Amino acid sequence: MSDDILPVSYVVSTDLVRDVSDALREGRTADALAFIGELHAADIADLTEALPSELRDALVHALGRELDPEMLAELDDQVRDEVLEQIEPEMLATHLAELDTDDAAEVLEDLDVDERKRVLEALPPADRELVAEALSYPESSAGRLMQRDYVAVPEYWTVGQVIDWLRDSDSLPEEFYELFVVDPRHKPVGAVPLSRAMRAKRPVRVADIMSAKQKLFPVEMDQEEVAFQFEQYDLTSAAVVDVDGRLIGQITIDDVVDVIEEEHEEDLHRLGGVNAEGDLFHSAGQTARRRSSWLLVNLFTAVIASITIALFADTIEQIVALAILMPIVASMGGNAGTQTLTVAVRALATKELTSANAWRIFWKETVVGGYNGVFFAILAGALSYAWFNQPLLGIVIALAMIVNLVVAGVSGLLIPLAMWRTGMDPAISAAILLTTITDVVGFFAFLGLAKIILL
Amino acid sequence: MSDDILPVSYVVSTDLVRDVSDALREGRTADALAFIGELHAADIADLTEALPSELRDALVHALGRELDPEMLAELDDQVRDEVLEQIEPEMLATHLAELDTDDAAEVLEDLDVDERKRVLEALPPADRELVAEALSYPESSAGRLMQRDYVAVPEYWTVGQVIDWLRDSDSLPEEFYELFVVDPRHKPVGAVPLSRAMRAKRPVRVADIMSAKQKLFPVEMDQEEVAFQFEQYDLTSAAVVDVDGRLIGQITIDDVVDVIEEEHEEDLHRLGGVNAEGDLFHSAGQTARRRSSWLLVNLFTAVIASITIALFADTIEQIVALAILMPIVASMGGNAGTQTLTVAVRALATKELTSANAWRIFWKETVVGGYNGVFFAILAGALSYAWFNQPLLGIVIALAMIVNLVVAGVSGLLIPLAMWRTGMDPAISAAILLTTITDVVGFFAFLGLAKIILL
Repeated sequence: MSDDILPVSYVVSTDLVRDVSDALREGRTADALAFIGELHAADIADLTEALPSELRDALVHALGRELDPEMLAELDDQVRDEVLEQIEPEMLATHLAELDTDDAAEVLEDLDVDERKRVLEALPPADRELVAEALSYPESSAGRLMQRDYVAVPEYWTVGQVIDWLRDSDSLPEEFYELFVVDPRHKPVGAVPLSRAMRAKRPVRVADIMSAKQKLFPVEMDQEEVAFQFEQYDLTSAAVVDVDGRLIGQITIDDVVDVIEEEHEEDLHRLGGVNAEGDLFHSAGQTARRRSSWLLVNLFTAVIASITIALFADTIEQIVALAILMPIVASMGGNAGTQTLTVAVRALATKELTSANAWRIFWKETVVGGYNGVFFAILAGALSYAWFNQPLLGIVIALAMIVNLVVAGVSGLLIPLAMWRTGMDPAISAAILLTTITDVVGFFAFLGLAKIILL
Repeated sequence: MSDDILPVSYVVSTDLVRDVSDALREGRTADALAFIGELHAADIADLTEALPSELRDALVHALGRELDPEMLAELDDQVRDEVLEQIEPEMLATHLAELDTDDAAEVLEDLDVDERKRVLEALPPADRELVAEALSYPESSAGRLMQRDYVAVPEYWTVGQVIDWLRDSDSLPEEFYELFVVDPRHKPVGAVPLSRAMRAKRPVRVADIMSAKQKLFPVEMDQEEVAFQFEQYDLTSAAVVDVDGRLIGQITIDDVVDVIEEEHEEDLHRLGGVNAEGDLFHSAGQTARRRSSWLLVNLFTAVIASITIALFADTIEQIVALAILMPIVASMGGNAGTQTLTVAVRALATKELTSANAWRIFWKETVVGGYNGVFFAILAGALSYAWFNQPLLGIVIALAMIVNLVVAGVSGLLIPLAMWRTGMDPAISAAILLTTITDVVGFFAFLGLAKIILL
């Protein structure tokens, strides 16, 4: 962040969190609600997340019927689970009836089966059917993401007819960005952005001003692909079609932005070895348990590295300098590999790295590893020579460095590529596999060369 | 990605890239252009990126005057630099005149001063002034992000007047999502989403249907904050105001989505120790040089870890098992710390981690480190005892594991928090600082305890 750019204070400030916490703790409900005042639902959600667990319940009770249902859709999954436990199924149904179907489905999807059933039964029949249908689509699909309210008009209508109908209709979505033009079988044939419709004269037919090259999203499409296309083609909203190609809903950019954030968080967390969603909001015990599975894998791979060292125990016993220097080779390999890995994982997500250029990038990474291998071989070699006054030791670490940096660069690319080819998420366990390789190769090359050259 | 979700083939396929490459290489320009056909500008940009460097030039020459200017705005910075070198300043000016000011400024910002001046001079005077002004705002500010075309109406107008004016005006932005309502001094007083304006009857005054609680963005605001507010409040477009609070432009969601992606990439790359933008598209030499600065820092920190080991050279000489086991303690600490670090960096970016709950999370991380420290102490202790048949060695590694995992958890939180407090990006160099700490503490605790307990 550069200095000449205006800093902004966030509305959910430390002071606000403290004031609300104090009021709730001392039972001053009216004060707490006054502090919350006219906050946006997203800010109330953030405030709820910032409170300690026991005060979240107090806040939900204080809000009671006044709870803004949008806030439920904005909460982190983990905190939402807690909050939902404080709300009776009938009250929850009242709240959900006010939400878009996609948001209602998102709130419901984490409830256990029995409770979900009770809430669904308490919903008005029309809402119940739509929400149940939304829940029937696979998680992370376009069907889950879409809302069922949209504006569709027949192609033979004029702009004037559309405007008159819009003015009289009372079952429209709260906000929409384009008119979907449909044929008699309700299949989309084009779309008219509202800004274009507003500028057209009344007698103009919508068919004459619509864009026919509209992107359509099958209800089963993965949300990651939906997000990619929204970004690639700068979409603001788009039509969702069923298996017969009929219009059944629309996806809007605000939901796509949430998906982008979600996918990014997933990538970052997976690269960092954190599998759990909502890690920040779990109890210490839960967090420790969730993170330990990853550490267990790491213990296993660390032992493999140790076994590599053990192969050369006699060599180390004779030259203790090897034990001192060996982490340098391993660590440099791990870091160089992580650089390549990070670039590769990201480039796969943005489709900048594909089968079309994989070979070219492979050669490039090999050369990069070679360049930096030679450069750091010279540095580390000179340093080791200076430190232990043994020229041959310098040569050993230099050779091991070149080997490990080339292996690191190539592995950093091939591991995520191989995972992607087999349909796995390239971010999952790529880092740990990589450092296992760079540790084992680093120790083996260094100690092995030492055994050959120095003894 | 689950199996029951529809896979989608990407339009810039390996086949397309190969066909276009072959055609360009063999000088079959017309064939190459036929393959490109009616591709969206964003896809042409991706195709250009996927081509080997020498064919990119050929493609740009083949496209000539037909080059879609939008494609320039979609290119990766590094590839854009290459492409711009192939275009004469006058031709580039013709292309830029067709772009929104924000996109034109983005294309121009990477040119060197002389060339930028030549292109600016070739622009029509009206465009020149707007683009030069856009370039005068700090990089990554709302001013750079905004476009200068927007729709503003006085508050006393009726919906009918607005519609008539829109139908007659010919200097409107290509697409817009809301009407900004301004007072006589051109200060925004509210906004009307188009979907609401279209549903209102002609005699209704815009002042009566506008939302007065509109978010305004000062021209100097950082783009990261702009993106946060767009996400938080589900905005599609928003007004940008100058220092006097007057409306001067608008930011639209498509540009914000690009910022979100850019910030994501930056976070991920920084955590992975890659500082360079467009790493994938640099030559091997450039990439090696850019990545080496980071590896140099790592070499330095690795040497610090080695010095820690050297302090206990005599201990290792007596018990070679220490050299074999010591990487386990360091590696477990590094991984546990990275887990916390990843969660913390992400939570700071989403404002889920703030001063309001930092202490609570601090205690939680300490407890998590303690839990997993004890768990892995038992595992590693038992394993080491089994391997070397020395009970005391098991106790040493167990104690060192507890120390290092607690330190790792606490450091993984405190390093990014401290950077954030001092206004730095928490992702920069956090990882390397962290692993330096976990390496040094891991080696020191393990070897130090060994010296005390075993000798």
